[in-house]
Amino acid sequence: MELTPDFFMKQALKQAELAFSEDEVPIGAVIVANNQIIGRGHNQVEKLNDPTAHAEMIAITAASSFLNSKYLNECSIYVTVEPCVMCYGAIKNARIKHIVLGCLEPKHGFTNFVSKPSSLELTSGVLEEESVRLMRSFFSSKRE
Amino acid sequence: MELTPDFFMKQALKQAELAFSEDEVPIGAVIVANNQIIGRGHNQVEKLNDPTAHAEMIAITAASSFLNSKYLNECSIYVTVEPCVMCYGAIKNARIKHIVLGCLEPKHGFTNFVSKPSSLELTSGVLEEESVRLMRSFFSSKRE
Repeated sequence: MELTPDFFMKQALKQAELAFSEDEVPIGAVIVANNQIIGRGHNQVEKLNDPTAHAEMIAITAASSFLNSKYLNECSIYVTVEPCVMCYGAIKNARIKHIVLGCLEPKHGFTNFVSKPSSLELTSGVLEEESVRLMRSFFSSKRE
Repeated sequence: MELTPDFFMKQALKQAELAFSEDEVPIGAVIVANNQIIGRGHNQVEKLNDPTAHAEMIAITAASSFLNSKYLNECSIYVTVEPCVMCYGAIKNARIKHIVLGCLEPKHGFTNFVSKPSSLELTSGVLEEESVRLMRSFFSSKRE
C-alpha cells in the first residue's frame, strides 16, 4: 500500500513534538525511500549545544547510515518547517530528490537566501496548520 | 604573541592533509577564538558515508562543544577551500564572525549560490597555493 504524504508528515510532526517536549524549537524531519522511513530527526540544538544539530541534518546522517551511502538520490525528506540554508545545502549535497514541507519559514527559510535552487522538487503546505500550531505554541510559551 | 592568519591556515592545511591521507577530498578547517584553536575538522564524508561530514561542520561541532555554546560569535573559521552552501549556513547559524579562506571554489562554493550573504567578514587567498596544490594533486591522483 502506498502511504500518503500526510502519513509521512505526521511522522515528522511526531519528531517535532519530541523536540517540543525537550524544550527545543519544534521541528522534525523524516526521510523516505521506497515508501519506507529510513531516517528520523528532531531538533537538538539546545540539548547538544550544537548549531548543526537540526532535525534535517540528523535525519540525513541517519538515512545515509541506513543505506550506507552518502547519496540519497531516490529519497524524499519531509520537514515540518522550511529548512534553513545549512539544511538546504545538506539536502542538496545528499542529492535528495524531493522536499515536502509543512509550513514555510519566511525569515530563516532557504528560499529567502538561495538564488539558484537546484532542480529538486518542492512541495509545500502538507499538514501546514499542525506545523504552524506547534511553532506558535512553542514561541508563545517562551514569551510567557 | 598574536598568531598570524598564515599560522592558523597551516593548521587547517594539516587537517586537509589528514583528509588526503584517508583518501578524502582534502579540505580542512580550524576555528579560532582569542588567538587559540578551539575546534578542528577534516573532511570525512567517505569514511563516515555521511554527506554532512564536511571539515567545517566537524570543526563547528567541536568548537561548540569546547565552549559549551551554540553560538561562536567571536570566532573565526579558517578553511582551506571555500565552503559549500551547507557549511556556509552552519557558519551563519553559529554566528561566526569571520571566514578566512585558502582558495575559492567557483563551482560548489557558497558565493555562487547565496544571494544575501550575511554581514560576516570574508578574507580569501591565505596560503592559497598550498590549498590549490592539495586539491589538484588529489583529483589528478583520482584520474590516474
